Parts: sequence; structure tokens; C-alpha cells
Amino acid sequence: MRIIGLDPGTYRTGYGIIDVKGSAYLPVSYGCLESKEVRISGRFLSIYDQLKEILSLHKPECSVVESPFLHRNPKVSMQLSEVRGVLILSLAQLGVEIAEYSPLEIKKAIVGYGRADKTQVGKMVKTLLNLPHIPRFNDTSDALAAALCHAQRQKSILAKYQ
Amino acid sequence: MRIIGLDPGTYRTGYGIIDVKGSAYLPVSYGCLESKEVRISGRFLSIYDQLKEILSLHKPECSVVESPFLHRNPKVSMQLSEVRGVLILSLAQLGVEIAEYSPLEIKKAIVGYGRADKTQVGKMVKTLLNLPHIPRFNDTSDALAAALCHAQRQKSILAKYQ
Repeated sequence: MRIIGLDPGTYRTGYGIIDVKGSAYLPVSYGCLESKEVRISGRFLSIYDQLKEILSLHKPECSVVESPFLHRNPKVSMQLSEVRGVLILSLAQLGVEIAEYSPLEIKKAIVGYGRADKTQVGKMVKTLLNLPHIPRFNDTSDALAAALCHAQRQKSILAKYQ
Repeated sequence: MRIIGLDPGTYRTGYGIIDVKGSAYLPVSYGCLESKEVRISGRFLSIYDQLKEILSLHKPECSVVESPFLHRNPKVSMQLSEVRGVLILSLAQLGVEIAEYSPLEIKKAIVGYGRADKTQVGKMVKTLLNLPHIPRFNDTSDALAAALCHAQRQKSILAKYQ
């Protein structure tokens, strides 16, 4: 099973694709969709095109997008939701299944503790995927963590019915 | 100048296209983008396709999307923002200019009073555009009001520099 995790951001959206082979998790591709466009419309165009390219290239079967959460600044929550809309549309257009987990659920699944900090998430992602380094941006680690969370959940669901 | 106004909604997004000819405002097309899809991804696909079709058919030069506002229920604000993301992307892909006004600014421009209720907006839209009836849905009236607000603003900007 190939999973893409996405961590929406207003300027930088993390993505992380992993393959699940038995009990092994293998990294396929990870990084950030970035845009230096000042106008929101330009950023959305760019994010949409970049994501479409990645999806066409790596053909994940399912995706995980962090579920919306209320930021301290509601304006930020709304801006992130706009990006989520663009990501969900791109995924739906290519027929990729979409799952959602809250940041808390993802951290709990990966680090075992819902209030884990960014460094702990990065370290666990590096360990679980046997990466040479912790990803440069937290957004990438968070996206990989989302994909890993889904992989673990799927495995426990499968185990339950086998 | 041809303007499309959009009032994002989770199930129903109002749209209203008007032509500005001198001091006259003429209705071109108005209604709602609706989807009965239960899944968000399906609704986004449908809204995107419907808007693209309308834009290709009527070719507006500019658009007005209601700016995000904090709803009493923050979850609703975030859902509306996701729809906004999809609308902005569709508009940007077809090169339509995007303007934003808050619901308060729109009501003030159309009814002269920022806290005007939905019925007052509907009545003013009917009068200003010489419509046979008040539009069936408030979402449509709000979208037409957004387009009218932009038309008035543009006119006052032009008047200032002439």
C-alpha cells in the first residue's frame, strides 16, 4: 500500500509518501510544496500543480490530510482550511482515497504521546523510516508522520479481522 | 465589465453574474452550485466542475468572493474556507481577477447598513438589478450583492480619477 501524507501550510505544505510492505515502512518521496507567490491565488495554482505532478508520478492509493484544528489565531485556521480545500480537490480529481487524523492522533500514533514536540516527531519519523537525516522542515516530518499513522491504523484494522 | 459574485457554502454556493454598462447593472446569470454528495471530496469535485462550466460559458473578467469571517462555530468557518480554496483555485486557473469584501462591507454598499438582514439584501438586489423576483435562495442574493458591491466600488474609484 502506498500512502501520501500532507501537512497543509499557507506558504509550505509538507508531503511524505511511504510504501507499506508487510511490517516494513519504506520512504518513497518526501519534501515540501512551496510557493513564493505573494497572491493567494498564485500560491493555490502552484500547490495544485505541484501536488498533481507528485500524485501522477508516484500514484499513491490513499492519502492522509491533517484534519483542521482551531489555531490560536482563527485567521490562520481559515487560511490553512483554504489550502486543505485545494489539496482535497487535487486528491479527489485523481481518485486518491482521503483519510483524516488530528495532529494529536498522529503524534499519539507515532511518538505515543499527543503533546509531543516537533523534534520528537522528526526523530521518530527518521527512526521508523530509517532515513539518513531528520527531514529539514517540520512540515515534511509531520506529513510523513501522518502517512505512518494511517499505515499503523490500517495494520491494526487488518490484524483485527484476520 | 462582467463580474461574478460568489457566496461560499458547504452544501450550496451562490453565484451571480452581472454586467456593468455605464450606470446600469444588468443580470446575466445567477443561481447556486449545489451538490448532494455526502463526502466532502465529492462536493468539492462537483463545485469545481460547475464553477468551471459557468466561468467558461459567461467569461467574467473579475470576481468577488466573500472574505472569510469568524462564524460562531469555528468548524463552520473552516469548512467554508475549504470551499473558498476550491473557488479561488478555479477562478485563478481561468485567469479571473479576484476581489474580496467582507459580508459587512457588502451589506453596507448595497443596503447602506452593515447589519442588514437577508430579506433586505434580497429586496435591494431585486431592485438594483430589476429582477422579476427576489432570488429563491439567500446564497444567490448574497452572491449578486457581492458583485454589485464590487461594481459600485469600481465606479467610485473610476469617478475619483476622471
